[in-house]
Amino acid sequence: MKGVILSINPLARIIDITHDLRPQDITGAAFSILVAYPAFPHGTIHVAVVDPGVGSDRLPIVVQAGNQIFVGPDNGLFSYVCEREAAAQVFAIRNDSLFRRPVSSTFHGRDIFAPVAAALSTGLTPAEVGEKLNTWNTLGTLRPRLLGNRTLQGRILHIDHFGNCITNFSREDFPGSQSGVRVSVNGRNIGSLRQYFAEPSPRKAESLFAIWGSAGFLEIAARNRSAAKILRAKAGQAVTAHLRNDR
Amino acid sequence: MKGVILSINPLARIIDITHDLRPQDITGAAFSILVAYPAFPHGTIHVAVVDPGVGSDRLPIVVQAGNQIFVGPDNGLFSYVCEREAAAQVFAIRNDSLFRRPVSSTFHGRDIFAPVAAALSTGLTPAEVGEKLNTWNTLGTLRPRLLGNRTLQGRILHIDHFGNCITNFSREDFPGSQSGVRVSVNGRNIGSLRQYFAEPSPRKAESLFAIWGSAGFLEIAARNRSAAKILRAKAGQAVTAHLRNDR
Amino acid sequence: MKGVILSINPLARIIDITHDLRPQDITGAAFSILVAYPAFPHGTIHVAVVDPGVGSDRLPIVVQAGNQIFVGPDNGLFSYVCEREAAAQVFAIRNDSLFRRPVSSTFHGRDIFAPVAAALSTGLTPAEVGEKLNTWNTLGTLRPRLLGNRTLQGRILHIDHFGNCITNFSREDFPGSQSGVRVSVNGRNIGSLRQYFAEPSPRKAESLFAIWGSAGFLEIAARNRSAAKILRAKAGQAVTAHLRNDR
Repeated sequence: MKGVILSINPLARIIDITHDLRPQDITGAAFSILVAYPAFPHGTIHVAVVDPGVGSDRLPIVVQAGNQIFVGPDNGLFSYVCEREAAAQVFAIRNDSLFRRPVSSTFHGRDIFAPVAAALSTGLTPAEVGEKLNTWNTLGTLRPRLLGNRTLQGRILHIDHFGNCITNFSREDFPGSQSGVRVSVNGRNIGSLRQYFAEPSPRKAESLFAIWGSAGFLEIAARNRSAAKILRAKAGQAVTAHLRNDR
Repeated sequence: MKGVILSINPLARIIDITHDLRPQDITGAAFSILVAYPAFPHGTIHVAVVDPGVGSDRLPIVVQAGNQIFVGPDNGLFSYVCEREAAAQVFAIRNDSLFRRPVSSTFHGRDIFAPVAAALSTGLTPAEVGEKLNTWNTLGTLRPRLLGNRTLQGRILHIDHFGNCITNFSREDFPGSQSGVRVSVNGRNIGSLRQYFAEPSPRKAESLFAIWGSAGFLEIAARNRSAAKILRAKAGQAVTAHLRNDR
Repeated sequence: MKGVILSINPLARIIDITHDLRPQDITGAAFSILVAYPAFPHGTIHVAVVDPGVGSDRLPIVVQAGNQIFVGPDNGLFSYVCEREAAAQVFAIRNDSLFRRPVSSTFHGRDIFAPVAAALSTGLTPAEVGEKLNTWNTLGTLRPRLLGNRTLQGRILHIDHFGNCITNFSREDFPGSQSGVRVSVNGRNIGSLRQYFAEPSPRKAESLFAIWGSAGFLEIAARNRSAAKILRAKAGQAVTAHLRNDR
């Protein structure tokens, strides 16, 4: 893919975000894109290829959102970005004059996404790639759901390299209760909220804690251990938060 | 190695292809080079260091092939490229004025290959590096062998990240029989040929299938599973293809 | 982090050294920095983030040493470089006008180190970042200790990708005895010294050997096997070297 891009635009600057996703891990890729893109300059073109449906009738798409561009399959990879960026526009990739020939049925990253991204980097506009779409595939929403008036139903968006479980709870879900977050995962309650990972614990036995992570989401962590292993937690599974009376 | 290259040619553009090969995996590296180089622009210099013989009398070499240059040890890393590119020329690296000093006996990547590649990127020609060689070390051929008139004897070139088993069978080995490929691995027959990975299977129980991969080789795959694990297959092992009568 | 750097300095050239360190592996990171920096051009800025103490009162620092700059947490990551480079200067990072806002308490790589490194790449001097420090945190010394007059007490600095155990013994620790190094790890003596990994062994049964590695340190290795596994050795543990009478 890098060779294809540089063959079309020798001045392209290529940055690796990650090559350490598990095979077929669409939700992990979607999370990685969500947390990375806000730090990139306007005009950045992101290419993402976690693409188990390659060769089927799933569409290749270009997303224009947040002054950046995203190229890849329509399988949810960019749906978190589209949820965040109200003005997101999604285009089908139809202009096959841009493709590398022959187009394989197993590696659209090389034959479609890379050459389209390279063409966009030389001035092509998303609208020149194909028609604008009104619907696209999405993963679940980033917003937790209120059950009754004291319980929030959320999920684990991602389990990171350290075993931290990153939920979809944001600070605005806990108005006025910064100091008293209580969440449950797999029947276990986590009531301790830390400001940073190495914070001394008041109770020695307490190994799990919650922490506001760098992506703005509540994470469940354990110092120098994998919280996911302790909790037997998996990406996508349910997490519950209990809101305090003073909400 | 990147520091050495940039110290000699501050304008060099360095692209990572892979750092995920297993230690000493010469055939895996040779396969990665074979599938990557066709996508790169003319004049690209590829540096490859899978080098268990470092420090012994194995030669460091420069290969000029397909309008590109390859730098590394003479242990077969570039032999697939040389087989593909009839006009390939191979040069010994002798010009030790190019080397980083002192030359370690355990890391020629840093002390020989990187500085030679950097010098080539600034205009040095392969012939200025050392004499042209008539022979070099090769891995097995990329061509399968015809046994009788209906059986092709091939091998698994590589097992990829997903567990797909990539054979050395090419489309031209199966003239007129695109729809009826039948291969055997470890006593198991795979008779189903798919166009893409997510293709719906007519028979539910059927987990293994063949597919023409993005490198132009027949691959044995299993949807969302590792075919290599199912088959207990290893890189380098034999694979047999049965040609149809209508050949 | 790459997005933050490019947002501040669009002309920055970003090179990846490694993303394969184990979580929290400060000594492995310190070793990687020690062996990589000498090959880089003057003016290179190294950013390193192995940072279990992020958010606590550990300082963020900038190190100026060997005509290069290092940015990261004050947890020993750069202490080997400071030991090597007598003229090293260490500065606290205090100038919070450089930081990305809001500063998270869990990812200073993105919010402090990356923007400070980017500012340094555009001409800011280390002294403009904060005051010079007289002390900083260090890992153990790179120098082994002489016990009596014939025994050197050292340690394993790092276990590499291949399982080679890299000690802190340097050539100058063995004056006049290049051919007769004898080291002990976990009660096992290694008396064979090879020049290169693939050197034919005089004794077949002998699997472990010592070798002067590319970083200038004595390594304990096994051909095509992991010496660390054979020895059940761990990074940081003691290694003893026995000097010969003719010292």
